[in-house]
Amino acid sequence: MSPARSVFSNPPKKPALEDGIYTEEEVRLANRNSGSLLETLNHDITPTGAHYLLIHFDVPNIDPSLHNLEFGDGFDSPYSLSMEDIRSLPRITMPVTLECAGNGRSRLSPRSLSMPWGVEAVGTSEWTGTPLLPLVERAAPKPGTADFAFTAADRGFDKGMEHNFGRSLTPKELSELQVLLAYEMNGQPLLPQHGAPLRIIVPGWYGMASVKWLTRIDALQTRYQGFQQIQTYRYRNHPDETGTPVSEIRVKSLMVPPGLPDWISRLRFVRPGKTAITGRAWSGGGVPIRKVEFSDGDHWREAVLSRPVGHYAWTGWSFDWFAEPGEHVLRCRATDVKGNTQPLHSRWDASGFGNNMVQEVGVLVAEDP
Amino acid sequence: MSPARSVFSNPPKKPALEDGIYTEEEVRLANRNSGSLLETLNHDITPTGAHYLLIHFDVPNIDPSLHNLEFGDGFDSPYSLSMEDIRSLPRITMPVTLECAGNGRSRLSPRSLSMPWGVEAVGTSEWTGTPLLPLVERAAPKPGTADFAFTAADRGFDKGMEHNFGRSLTPKELSELQVLLAYEMNGQPLLPQHGAPLRIIVPGWYGMASVKWLTRIDALQTRYQGFQQIQTYRYRNHPDETGTPVSEIRVKSLMVPPGLPDWISRLRFVRPGKTAITGRAWSGGGVPIRKVEFSDGDHWREAVLSRPVGHYAWTGWSFDWFAEPGEHVLRCRATDVKGNTQPLHSRWDASGFGNNMVQEVGVLVAEDP
Repeated sequence: MSPARSVFSNPPKKPALEDGIYTEEEVRLANRNSGSLLETLNHDITPTGAHYLLIHFDVPNIDPSLHNLEFGDGFDSPYSLSMEDIRSLPRITMPVTLECAGNGRSRLSPRSLSMPWGVEAVGTSEWTGTPLLPLVERAAPKPGTADFAFTAADRGFDKGMEHNFGRSLTPKELSELQVLLAYEMNGQPLLPQHGAPLRIIVPGWYGMASVKWLTRIDALQTRYQGFQQIQTYRYRNHPDETGTPVSEIRVKSLMVPPGLPDWISRLRFVRPGKTAITGRAWSGGGVPIRKVEFSDGDHWREAVLSRPVGHYAWTGWSFDWFAEPGEHVLRCRATDVKGNTQPLHSRWDASGFGNNMVQEVGVLVAEDP
Repeated sequence: MSPARSVFSNPPKKPALEDGIYTEEEVRLANRNSGSLLETLNHDITPTGAHYLLIHFDVPNIDPSLHNLEFGDGFDSPYSLSMEDIRSLPRITMPVTLECAGNGRSRLSPRSLSMPWGVEAVGTSEWTGTPLLPLVERAAPKPGTADFAFTAADRGFDKGMEHNFGRSLTPKELSELQVLLAYEMNGQPLLPQHGAPLRIIVPGWYGMASVKWLTRIDALQTRYQGFQQIQTYRYRNHPDETGTPVSEIRVKSLMVPPGLPDWISRLRFVRPGKTAITGRAWSGGGVPIRKVEFSDGDHWREAVLSRPVGHYAWTGWSFDWFAEPGEHVLRCRATDVKGNTQPLHSRWDASGFGNNMVQEVGVLVAEDP
């Protein structure tokens, strides 16, 4: 509990994190951040409040009536927009599946010290706002713009560096991605913890790109060097590597765990016979799902897909499983139309990003437990 | 991941849980259940979705148009109510502060194996519904009724016992507590994870009493023996004791951690000088808060209280702290008008219930970190 100057002035050392044993810091982060409840995968749109939350610093307390979005440095026609201005612009609503880049981190061995997600950091909401690209074009980025920096109101320390949360997109990325400047979620004004009053949604990318509490956009002549772009959210084989940027979501699927749970272990009890298994599958960059397979052992069988909830939102799937008495590990595996599929074993990453290993659900099938 | 029959058929053994080291089960529960974000204590009403969530089994998926509340066994005039019936009854809205009985569990040594809450399992919502007492009276409980059992739709295993979540209140408790049959939260229909379409709110008691997904009420001639009433939610010095029931919330206060956080450790950095500290305080049974004290060391100084948000809802407080350079542990301590106050050290409980030990926030005050 005693504060330690080193936390603020030096990168904390990364302890070796043992499988199955977690630190105080990890539990504090898990208590603070929120996973989705897997049974809410039954809903096309994740119920408000059950969508995952990953908040690096503190939720800012912003008065929407005083909030402006500044198109600042590096534009020939800089300007700013109030929330009223933004709400009067062309309005679109789109369902988007967001997933935390660190989802699956705790399934890696060894794992890095950060939020110890299992499989639950995913959700789908209907986001309402206005397309960002025309607003950036209206500000007339100076010739030679190499990057657009998105700066947020939340501020804190990471690895000894004080900074506001910020991310960037290149002009090419911004022109290709359907980035939304969003002020509503599921038909209601954005909640404080989801970025109120204003955020971006970068569909098809992991959640770190969808900057919450957005305050300004700058056009840069060189690539953005913000902490959250350069120091983290990189795939690395070793913590000291430069690595490659985390961007599009990797193909994944989840099932609603069937039967009845045990409170502590979350293991499932299922009575023998026909059992409907349902779930969701999604991939990055708007790439559709081609198939989902289900297994209660070594054999994989194809599930039935339903229509995707949206171009950038998950696809439902179902499988009629005949539950035979015994102990089983249920798995599901999605493949997208580009042929990307989920690995059966984790791809290791030094920071625990992008782990799309298949989900495993332990089930006891019996007439009586 | 392999399911184990013993989980469903026998009480799991409680391992000795070491301070500062957490198990896989605890992290899984922490990922699934949600703590409040302490900075949202700035809001009189916790933003929807930032209210804590403790869900024993799975969130049921209930069609409100088919849902009925049965006044079943033990009544002379049993009847049932559809959601439409319930919405047409006299309607009241009240802000209520709910806290999980296990809040503070991870601050005990040793701690029991369950959801490893720090301090964050508390929130205040505006609940809308109809008073329950007249509806129970209308069903005419048979003479000699000793208990009213509230049965919910969620079902699962705990310590090897399969059961629906259920709780009870005695006729005396029901007549004294302002129990609300609630179908809205913060002006919106109940969210699935908060008990949709129908729950009770038992103001002034820890959250386990406020049964979600309510399906039936029975009047019993003997005391209710449901798992969640008898086997758990008891204060015990030893796991094998009968113990005494957990009921009213114990007096407590929390502060919004000041300054800027470190992402991983959540330690705070504050620049020297006047720093406004704000927070909330609450007690059980509608007992008002008499004072809140603040300390950055050994000395306690009284904070300024604001009007309570409601008879059963928390009271705001503020303190102008002059932050001197150095490392500090900030604490706050509430006392209610009955003289109940928060202990400086945890009262140990075998199941980790009712820990109202003062919050501790580690802060580094410096011009530069």
